Amino acid sequence: MEQNEFDHDLNIDRLGPATVPSPKRVMRYTADDERVIAATDPVAIARQLAAGQAPASFEAAGPREFLFFNPDGLRAGIVTCGGLCPGLNDVIRAIVLSLYHHYGVREIDGFRFGYEGLNPDLGHEPLQLTPDGVEMIGELGGTILGTSRGDQDVTLMVDTLVARNVRILFTIGGDGTLRGAAAIAAEIARRNLPIAVVGVPKTIDNDISLIERSFGFVTATAEARRAVQAAHNEAEAARNGIGLVKLMGRESGFIAAYSALADSQVNFCLIPECPFTLEALLPALAERLRQRGHAVIAVAEGAGQQLVGRDGARDASGNVKMGDIGLFLKEAIKDYFAARNVSISLKYIDPSYTIRSLPANAYDSAYCLLLGFNAVHAAMSGRTNLVVGYWNNHYTHVPIPAAVSRRKQIDPEDWLWTSVLLATGQPRELV
Amino acid sequence: MEQNEFDHDLNIDRLGPATVPSPKRVMRYTADDERVIAATDPVAIARQLAAGQAPASFEAAGPREFLFFNPDGLRAGIVTCGGLCPGLNDVIRAIVLSLYHHYGVREIDGFRFGYEGLNPDLGHEPLQLTPDGVEMIGELGGTILGTSRGDQDVTLMVDTLVARNVRILFTIGGDGTLRGAAAIAAEIARRNLPIAVVGVPKTIDNDISLIERSFGFVTATAEARRAVQAAHNEAEAARNGIGLVKLMGRESGFIAAYSALADSQVNFCLIPECPFTLEALLPALAERLRQRGHAVIAVAEGAGQQLVGRDGARDASGNVKMGDIGLFLKEAIKDYFAARNVSISLKYIDPSYTIRSLPANAYDSAYCLLLGFNAVHAAMSGRTNLVVGYWNNHYTHVPIPAAVSRRKQIDPEDWLWTSVLLATGQPRELV
Amino acid sequence: MEQNEFDHDLNIDRLGPATVPSPKRVMRYTADDERVIAATDPVAIARQLAAGQAPASFEAAGPREFLFFNPDGLRAGIVTCGGLCPGLNDVIRAIVLSLYHHYGVREIDGFRFGYEGLNPDLGHEPLQLTPDGVEMIGELGGTILGTSRGDQDVTLMVDTLVARNVRILFTIGGDGTLRGAAAIAAEIARRNLPIAVVGVPKTIDNDISLIERSFGFVTATAEARRAVQAAHNEAEAARNGIGLVKLMGRESGFIAAYSALADSQVNFCLIPECPFTLEALLPALAERLRQRGHAVIAVAEGAGQQLVGRDGARDASGNVKMGDIGLFLKEAIKDYFAARNVSISLKYIDPSYTIRSLPANAYDSAYCLLLGFNAVHAAMSGRTNLVVGYWNNHYTHVPIPAAVSRRKQIDPEDWLWTSVLLATGQPRELV
Amino acid sequence: MEQNEFDHDLNIDRLGPATVPSPKRVMRYTADDERVIAATDPVAIARQLAAGQAPASFEAAGPREFLFFNPDGLRAGIVTCGGLCPGLNDVIRAIVLSLYHHYGVREIDGFRFGYEGLNPDLGHEPLQLTPDGVEMIGELGGTILGTSRGDQDVTLMVDTLVARNVRILFTIGGDGTLRGAAAIAAEIARRNLPIAVVGVPKTIDNDISLIERSFGFVTATAEARRAVQAAHNEAEAARNGIGLVKLMGRESGFIAAYSALADSQVNFCLIPECPFTLEALLPALAERLRQRGHAVIAVAEGAGQQLVGRDGARDASGNVKMGDIGLFLKEAIKDYFAARNVSISLKYIDPSYTIRSLPANAYDSAYCLLLGFNAVHAAMSGRTNLVVGYWNNHYTHVPIPAAVSRRKQIDPEDWLWTSVLLATGQPRELV
Repeated sequence: MEQNEFDHDLNIDRLGPATVPSPKRVMRYTADDERVIAATDPVAIARQLAAGQAPASFEAAGPREFLFFNPDGLRAGIVTCGGLCPGLNDVIRAIVLSLYHHYGVREIDGFRFGYEGLNPDLGHEPLQLTPDGVEMIGELGGTILGTSRGDQDVTLMVDTLVARNVRILFTIGGDGTLRGAAAIAAEIARRNLPIAVVGVPKTIDNDISLIERSFGFVTATAEARRAVQAAHNEAEAARNGIGLVKLMGRESGFIAAYSALADSQVNFCLIPECPFTLEALLPALAERLRQRGHAVIAVAEGAGQQLVGRDGARDASGNVKMGDIGLFLKEAIKDYFAARNVSISLKYIDPSYTIRSLPANAYDSAYCLLLGFNAVHAAMSGRTNLVVGYWNNHYTHVPIPAAVSRRKQIDPEDWLWTSVLLATGQPRELV
Repeated sequence: MEQNEFDHDLNIDRLGPATVPSPKRVMRYTADDERVIAATDPVAIARQLAAGQAPASFEAAGPREFLFFNPDGLRAGIVTCGGLCPGLNDVIRAIVLSLYHHYGVREIDGFRFGYEGLNPDLGHEPLQLTPDGVEMIGELGGTILGTSRGDQDVTLMVDTLVARNVRILFTIGGDGTLRGAAAIAAEIARRNLPIAVVGVPKTIDNDISLIERSFGFVTATAEARRAVQAAHNEAEAARNGIGLVKLMGRESGFIAAYSALADSQVNFCLIPECPFTLEALLPALAERLRQRGHAVIAVAEGAGQQLVGRDGARDASGNVKMGDIGLFLKEAIKDYFAARNVSISLKYIDPSYTIRSLPANAYDSAYCLLLGFNAVHAAMSGRTNLVVGYWNNHYTHVPIPAAVSRRKQIDPEDWLWTSVLLATGQPRELV
Repeated sequence: MEQNEFDHDLNIDRLGPATVPSPKRVMRYTADDERVIAATDPVAIARQLAAGQAPASFEAAGPREFLFFNPDGLRAGIVTCGGLCPGLNDVIRAIVLSLYHHYGVREIDGFRFGYEGLNPDLGHEPLQLTPDGVEMIGELGGTILGTSRGDQDVTLMVDTLVARNVRILFTIGGDGTLRGAAAIAAEIARRNLPIAVVGVPKTIDNDISLIERSFGFVTATAEARRAVQAAHNEAEAARNGIGLVKLMGRESGFIAAYSALADSQVNFCLIPECPFTLEALLPALAERLRQRGHAVIAVAEGAGQQLVGRDGARDASGNVKMGDIGLFLKEAIKDYFAARNVSISLKYIDPSYTIRSLPANAYDSAYCLLLGFNAVHAAMSGRTNLVVGYWNNHYTHVPIPAAVSRRKQIDPEDWLWTSVLLATGQPRELV
Repeated sequence: MEQNEFDHDLNIDRLGPATVPSPKRVMRYTADDERVIAATDPVAIARQLAAGQAPASFEAAGPREFLFFNPDGLRAGIVTCGGLCPGLNDVIRAIVLSLYHHYGVREIDGFRFGYEGLNPDLGHEPLQLTPDGVEMIGELGGTILGTSRGDQDVTLMVDTLVARNVRILFTIGGDGTLRGAAAIAAEIARRNLPIAVVGVPKTIDNDISLIERSFGFVTATAEARRAVQAAHNEAEAARNGIGLVKLMGRESGFIAAYSALADSQVNFCLIPECPFTLEALLPALAERLRQRGHAVIAVAEGAGQQLVGRDGARDASGNVKMGDIGLFLKEAIKDYFAARNVSISLKYIDPSYTIRSLPANAYDSAYCLLLGFNAVHAAMSGRTNLVVGYWNNHYTHVPIPAAVSRRKQIDPEDWLWTSVLLATGQPRELV
């Protein structure tokens, strides 16, 4: 983790002074000056301090003794955007439970189908969310609110908030969603409105910066392991068996990396952060078959994009459309061994959406609860334009601009990738 | 279930008289004349009896008081063939445990990689199987013996049995494997050798005739449900969301049918037994979207083959190569709605081998144990050229020629398909 | 399975002629004279027929072409009684979906807390059930209707049905519940009312007669296996490790039996049907420890009741209160080895309600759907005083008096117990 | 997390200079001066630095460029001690794989049954561990080495290491085990032997200090959630239903706390760190029943010990024997409501060992791999008397004396307990 990650301003915007006493008595309120240090290297920290600079730190999340919003008659809204992720419903439930039970907020709009739900022209009526209505939704995957990709007109969306008298908007989504949230917050600031925008960062790829681990990731690793186990069982049962698994991971290969660590059945882990060539991969694969008779490959969907002619087209969320590296590799491997008259048995497994569409496991569910609670605490205190994060064993506030400033990726020099290479036994470089 | 299913001779071949007292005292030995009636219709049965015909019935499986083989110094062999199926290792374990603990058989060859392991030219040395070696293999998917598709030269295989002094061969496999086993048994009979060939029928598609349910099917339905749930969650979260799931089922749609029953989230279930046309399916799909905003389709891999130009090519097991109906439908649906300017969100999920490669659940595991035990009982009593089956709440012996005479399929007139149609709400016919 | 099981009258009561055409077109209606033969022994069947007797058979379940009830304005009610069982919510959902979508019934009362909900003095207002309301309840364990043990006054309950104009009552419950349902049906008959009472038999112990397997049992075996695996892991990790697992099974040991088959890790399976003495069990356990160093015992809660002084007290459902054989054995084993100065490590595991409280797996879920659909078909056709069953690969109608006439138990002479003994290796008798 | 936690010396002992080049080329070796800051509060850190003190920090774990041990002919040993924990086999496998594949160590003793295996008088012969032998053990719960509680004579154990020429001992265990390891390291130092002792901290209770999360904890939370869901389903299905779940947690209530967060179905979470009285708990429970009709209680086994007369007796590991708070509460609740003539339905669930005996899930499995790898890296570099830890997103080295200096507990003032109280809605204090 490089120091320059923390270059961004980590101060949190506020709508105004917090003067309303919290209706909820808790064991301990978080003080406004509690912070969590960002960097981990004590030498660098000491050097900064010696140079008169404060080392980067995050504001600590948690319930505040005084609120900006008076809960009486307050209306909040929730929107989920982008692709599914295990735990979306848990986050929704946590926000509703906290608003209702901790603060007494009774009016909660569940906007439908992502930012579309904030565009009045599309006619999606919000759901009215209550504790009873969300009690069991954590057992289900998906999102009860629905979702969509892409932005809507910011002016229209803020108009909707004003028209419905929504004073807090919770946005649960990824990179694109959060940029949208920042735009909404900016428009709110331009109009000088007392409306808070608080995000909960969602990414199945675990690729949001300044967040140690994104919700749903623990669940996703379990699904990925199932696919790898199936591939391993297929590969081992055949002579020259090859199990090829494609996993999610557009720009960051965390799921593929953890799938390699979870059972150490993966022999080649291919991720977007580490380019590879067929000229290096295929002979290494052939050597593995010679030595052990079978092999398992886990490839992140964003790996090897230079091989599949990524053409720069983008989807509705602004994500670059990917070439299909999985099918490409499947054919390339078959061709390679066919050309050498080596009989292989290749089994291709693409768990695709099952990685992200099933319910969260217990650990992720608890994590979602804590993220949702802390999002409500932040919003009620009048903070805005932030996402709730987790860092260094503490829940934190991260300014949206800092969170979206760059994508978190696996550092090939860091302990994670070093360990993956040790687990797979693959060559350090496949170029 | 039609009466003509039972037209085949259901008598079981024997190598000779069973005169060796069983070393294992059990609660009750199965008598040689115990049988299980095959048909279920009492009127038809009465009519047959009135006409002087015996209604079709299966020999009951179970431990026999007298054996054909003397266990002292006896050598048995096990081979697993064809595609993986949950429970393969459980069956192997059951056979080993029963041979060893119930009969005192100490020499058990685990032939490698299907029938290849019986071809000495290929040089696969058998594993020596022991109770300790198989104790925990039920927790793993796949087969510890390895597998392969296709036959080997029958003469060579019988030579191998003779050379190794293997007196019982257990073959765990599907249609093609069992035909191979029948050919081995025929060659053994031709040479007048005292070698038993006993099969355990394996098919992830549940398509072996005269067997109520094949092992691994309960586990496969659970995997299929996961895929359907993921598809449902994806579909419901989007406007005009369509979840399209391709499931195993080459000639028989049992997995797809049960996936439709398990959660009733499937709106269109497409199986090989019921042809459909795009002209009927796509407007019905459009209507479903109009009414409910999302839809889930479960399609068996063998459905709609007339649409994808199945060309008659065959794989090494002699199975016809299928056109990819899943990808075909995916494109056809996209084209259909694009042509009508209807924006949809289609998510395609193909769990592929995960359906068959993971370990068996408890119910299947128990079933495998009982199949394996009964296979050993049958073999030790000198029965041959049979598979162990389950019918009418009893374990049975089924002659291999009867078991492979036709493929079990869903009868569109039977209760199962009627119930699937009621569960999905799809039109009775999609042509 | 003994022939005398089928001594009861298997004819089904009807409220009157079915003359209303079914609104639902299906592939094939079940004809009124379709039956499923009950016995399996062809010799016994032939002997009966030769003696001029019709062999026992069940009426086949399924949709009928003509109904007794006109669906317009029809009101139905559902009640769940007794202990939880995986799949209760699936059955409720299936009944609601079938009533609504297959027949157009729009008024469906969900009576609360078992038969209490039919007693107006207790003031439980029924839920109004709709397809939307039950869509996802299959993902949850328990019952959304609530449940209770014990009867209520029959006159009051029928009064409630009359007052609410409920014309079909679906009762989902076990032995006691079904006796209650029969009493309700008798009172309805006495008053000559056109009200159908149709049951779906529920028992976690799989102990209802004339039903091959009760819903939830497949799920329960999976939970039981988890407990056995934990016990095995604990036992194997210790010197003289003993894992003792108590499982549900009051009068019938099916869960314990299947837990012994699922992994063959159980060394002693103790069930209510087979008495045992400490004098036989404990030395056998000591011998097992001497030979293998660890042991696993699975004991059904109803086993060995003569050892724990069952005193005849009964709970609200009329079930005899059991002595705690698990804790008794735990102490007896500890005392036995302490007295012999043998150091052991005993781990006691009682999964208790987790066996029955969690959601149904896919196979059970599909089974529940089919049971629920067929219950609705039976009721709409005017059949009453019956439960829906499964036998010989067909769904059936079973008169309630026949279903509750005796409890299904493991026959120690049958294939199941013989196989369990072969799996555990325990002595045939432990007395 | 209080600052005084880090008062201990965090420097790591070394056997001598590391001069042997590592045979394994990795992406990046960890430098000897890389450290991870321990405290999170930037103000406190700045204050320390201003006062001329270095803020506490851990040595970073990872592969070293130079080793102390020459791998040629090197012999290592592994021992697992104390209670089971999900992931034990994963750690064993990771250590074996790393020793073998990363360093070329070929002689690996698997000592049996905890420290007993190091006592030659007990005659437990070590297993010889190889990559093939450990390939699939991660799929199984328990430990293939066996385990035991309690110490053995330190002199004898070191004699064993010397006699077998074991140069590295990996000890996987909890508080007591690590104290034993420290004693072994001290005896080694006294004799001036070149033998490294490296621990992997194991505790199902997540209660080892200076380690952010112990392995197996994520898996344990999933098991605990199952028990809570069962209890919730039972409670909600009954009038005045109470689900009472006892969970592991002797001195620290982390499992109970996370079980309350994972589904927010828990209404009262009782942990060792927060005393409670029946006088406060029972009326609060009665009030909950009045308002909502059902309640779920999760109680850690070490909670409320002042109520159950903990008498100070200790088990073989030196752990204080606990009174059974679960059964105590069960009776106390029944008595309380019986005395008030309130009919309740209490269901008691004690998942006991299933929490710790089942296999690790994917996330824990990956974590175990990384702990095991880093333990090997540390040992090969000549470090000793340490455990491998995880802190602040980095793997660390923690001196054993620091790790066992105090038990990690939930701080009632910290974010975790505050969030649990918000999730359950229980009173802040129950005294």
